[in-house]
Amino acid sequence: MTVRAAVEAVRRSLEDDPARAVAHLRTEAQLVGVTQVTVRMGSHEVTVDEPKSVGGTGAGASPIQLALAALGSCQAITYRYWADILGLRLDGVIVRVEGDVDLRGFFGFDPNVRPGVSAVKCLITLEGPEDADRYQKLIIAVDAHCPVLDIFTRPVHVERHVKLTWGAA
Amino acid sequence: MTVRAAVEAVRRSLEDDPARAVAHLRTEAQLVGVTQVTVRMGSHEVTVDEPKSVGGTGAGASPIQLALAALGSCQAITYRYWADILGLRLDGVIVRVEGDVDLRGFFGFDPNVRPGVSAVKCLITLEGPEDADRYQKLIIAVDAHCPVLDIFTRPVHVERHVKLTWGAA
Repeated sequence: MTVRAAVEAVRRSLEDDPARAVAHLRTEAQLVGVTQVTVRMGSHEVTVDEPKSVGGTGAGASPIQLALAALGSCQAITYRYWADILGLRLDGVIVRVEGDVDLRGFFGFDPNVRPGVSAVKCLITLEGPEDADRYQKLIIAVDAHCPVLDIFTRPVHVERHVKLTWGAA
Repeated sequence: MTVRAAVEAVRRSLEDDPARAVAHLRTEAQLVGVTQVTVRMGSHEVTVDEPKSVGGTGAGASPIQLALAALGSCQAITYRYWADILGLRLDGVIVRVEGDVDLRGFFGFDPNVRPGVSAVKCLITLEGPEDADRYQKLIIAVDAHCPVLDIFTRPVHVERHVKLTWGAA
């Protein structure tokens, strides 16, 4: 099944039952070492850790690297879908995502420094035979529909609930 | 080296040379299948894909799942660091992150639906022997300093540059 056929199948499925449009995602992150975390996402798993320079063991990418990876992969996949939706040929996509993290924010050394990333850049290389103006339309469509770009650029409300348990090992 | 000792070492290092505070992160995402992406983050790598229900092969977690994994692991690690900074014992951390994605946003079926996530919840379980009010201080410190929570809840400016190449395989 092509991506475009999959999109059409989803459209027909939602016409029959609009409630199918919403996917409920669940992940679970467990601290398993000093700063090492195992995250389960359905049948997939990823190891996250801090580098040795800040006291971790470097067993995996850091959470911020993972957030940048989510952005880059989301851009690449959204280019794939929207090229097919718009009927454009696209032979290759590479997305480099760069960002700066100022440790003074995370460690609380300076309350004026944000703990997150700044100077975030996506450097996108598209390979294909179409005219440049057709790819311009694609770029506009991708920027309007990329889910993780939306998470980065527009505020997302995040509820937090904490449960305390007593049961030291 | 304990996490707290690492934080102190970073503090002293930054007193000597404040320019060391900023880490430049780089990731590269390459489309390698229909919707499958390989992301390199320094020496680490992750496979990202869409599920079969929308035309992918399910070879990895989706970009939005990865973004939620980044949030959950970042919360867990920030609890670790700030418990040590505040001198609290913390024996275990599990963070479940849930979120809803409405496919009508991503596929452009409804321009009023955001492509990203909504109803994001972090359900955090902390295990340890301290009094509840001490953990309340920890929760406040974590929410103020968690980098990926900052990315989700406050807008991040993302520059985008696209290069077109002609070179079909």
